[in-house]
Amino acid sequence: MLMTIDYAKAAGLLLSNDDILIISHMNPDGDTLGCAFALCRALIQKGKRARVICSDHIPSKYSYLSDGLDIQEFRPSFITTVDVADIKLLGGNLEDRYGEIINLSIDHHGSNKMFAEYNCVDSYAGAAAEIIYKVILEMGVSIDTDIANCIYTGLSTDTGCFRYSNATAQTYRIAAEMLDAGAESSSINTVMFESKSLAFLKLQQLCIDGMKVFFNDRCSVVTLTQDMYKKSGIDDTESESISSLARQVEGVYVGVTIRERENGKCKVSIRSHSPVDAAEICAKMNGGGHNRAAGCELSMSVEQTTQEVLKHIKQALIENGII
Amino acid sequence: MLMTIDYAKAAGLLLSNDDILIISHMNPDGDTLGCAFALCRALIQKGKRARVICSDHIPSKYSYLSDGLDIQEFRPSFITTVDVADIKLLGGNLEDRYGEIINLSIDHHGSNKMFAEYNCVDSYAGAAAEIIYKVILEMGVSIDTDIANCIYTGLSTDTGCFRYSNATAQTYRIAAEMLDAGAESSSINTVMFESKSLAFLKLQQLCIDGMKVFFNDRCSVVTLTQDMYKKSGIDDTESESISSLARQVEGVYVGVTIRERENGKCKVSIRSHSPVDAAEICAKMNGGGHNRAAGCELSMSVEQTTQEVLKHIKQALIENGII
Repeated sequence: MLMTIDYAKAAGLLLSNDDILIISHMNPDGDTLGCAFALCRALIQKGKRARVICSDHIPSKYSYLSDGLDIQEFRPSFITTVDVADIKLLGGNLEDRYGEIINLSIDHHGSNKMFAEYNCVDSYAGAAAEIIYKVILEMGVSIDTDIANCIYTGLSTDTGCFRYSNATAQTYRIAAEMLDAGAESSSINTVMFESKSLAFLKLQQLCIDGMKVFFNDRCSVVTLTQDMYKKSGIDDTESESISSLARQVEGVYVGVTIRERENGKCKVSIRSHSPVDAAEICAKMNGGGHNRAAGCELSMSVEQTTQEVLKHIKQALIENGII
Repeated sequence: MLMTIDYAKAAGLLLSNDDILIISHMNPDGDTLGCAFALCRALIQKGKRARVICSDHIPSKYSYLSDGLDIQEFRPSFITTVDVADIKLLGGNLEDRYGEIINLSIDHHGSNKMFAEYNCVDSYAGAAAEIIYKVILEMGVSIDTDIANCIYTGLSTDTGCFRYSNATAQTYRIAAEMLDAGAESSSINTVMFESKSLAFLKLQQLCIDGMKVFFNDRCSVVTLTQDMYKKSGIDDTESESISSLARQVEGVYVGVTIRERENGKCKVSIRSHSPVDAAEICAKMNGGGHNRAAGCELSMSVEQTTQEVLKHIKQALIENGII
């Protein structure tokens, strides 16, 4: 396993290469995409050819991140991943195609597998965008409005709009720099956090109706079945932010959202309050993530998944002296 | 009308007086209370006697702001208001009692009536807490964890957790300073924004069920009747955050929440997206507030209130070329 490299070294690697392919993680979020397009724009500003790829469709709400960027065609000679903890998270055929030839990984997950030739990993960063900001500063890039919007998007989305404990003083300071550079923070936050379709609000309602609580109301479980998706007319991507609902109930330490997939598997999102570690619980079911937000996927029915998840949560609640 | 004074002058006034009464506005929020208790703690640190009063009950979720503060008894010799734009907003009998003898007003509302002997008003500040921070720095106060928690609460609550356009680079920078001083940002945000009782979630559901849209879906109206309060078992204070619901619907420029009071009057909250000015709309109904969040109270039935409010909103939407 290689040690992590510093920002200056990462910047040097990027500057001394060209035709750079940037890969985000699958099921892309604002942090991985904000990082990818900020880095892409920075490299182009430095006279390089660069492009971003993702194994999944990029939801339209993120389209402003790539506004005005032409897709550059080239045979990659340097491959970097952003906000990717494990090559399994590249998704699609990207793991097979690139998994073993990644030159540089820029990431903030404590669980990072150090899979690249060079790994620039800083788990102190609340968002991977904090690291990208520091790397592109080292590259001598001037932060324009487009880059500022990309970085702000990463900071804001990965910290629940500065709400969660991973937002540190550094996160706030970089956000201030991005506002000074012209980041349209309030428009970005409206798109990322406020705008909800009526279909979404109806789905949320179905979820509240069906919400179940366990272990002296310390754990709540929301289930989204294929039937509920159909009833509300919403897709899986749009339903992502339902994940925070379960944890919002007063007194709850662990909020679980179970999504039934079309392929019969179940996707589990776990959000927790301190001291319960969501990543630890998910690790027991071959998943992972952050301390307060993690996930896993189980090849079981909704009922079996619920039982399996509750078993591990009960253990965690007991270990933490909560029940 | 007296001109506004600078932070240093405000600090000087506070330092050269003693037995200081600090008054928040009625229906207190996190900013007015955060300011009041931050200032109170700062004054006590400087060896003064000081206490905070508010004409309304302070909701229990704010109790940490005053933790460990003893109520000091004295006959006030210097009176200051925080985050109060108009003496009408003192509420209860405080307008009669103190309205004409306020020595210092510290505020960030552009609509401030400059009612005090000295007015330290900076409408650039996203939260009044930004001004309090600067004033107490000028006073030579050392920002301890308690003061940091008070100021962070003001910053976060008045900007919708840094989501709205009033959160400037300055807001983020002061938040970073507060985190460095020990502010428990994530716990505060959990209490202020995340914890919702099941009763609240049920009320939210009743609101979504009854939500009406007008003017090509550019305006949405949520109505809370006394009957709905009774059904959900929630009180008026706890229902405050429902106000943001109406504006959350995709495509909506103006979100209206109408609350039926026990006295038969109706309280109206208007939230808008740029370019619609919520304060301008409310001013036409003898109310006021900020550009994106304002309110008023009408002595009419819910139906009459709805018609009156819609009339002014229609005009604003036409003037802004939205319909």
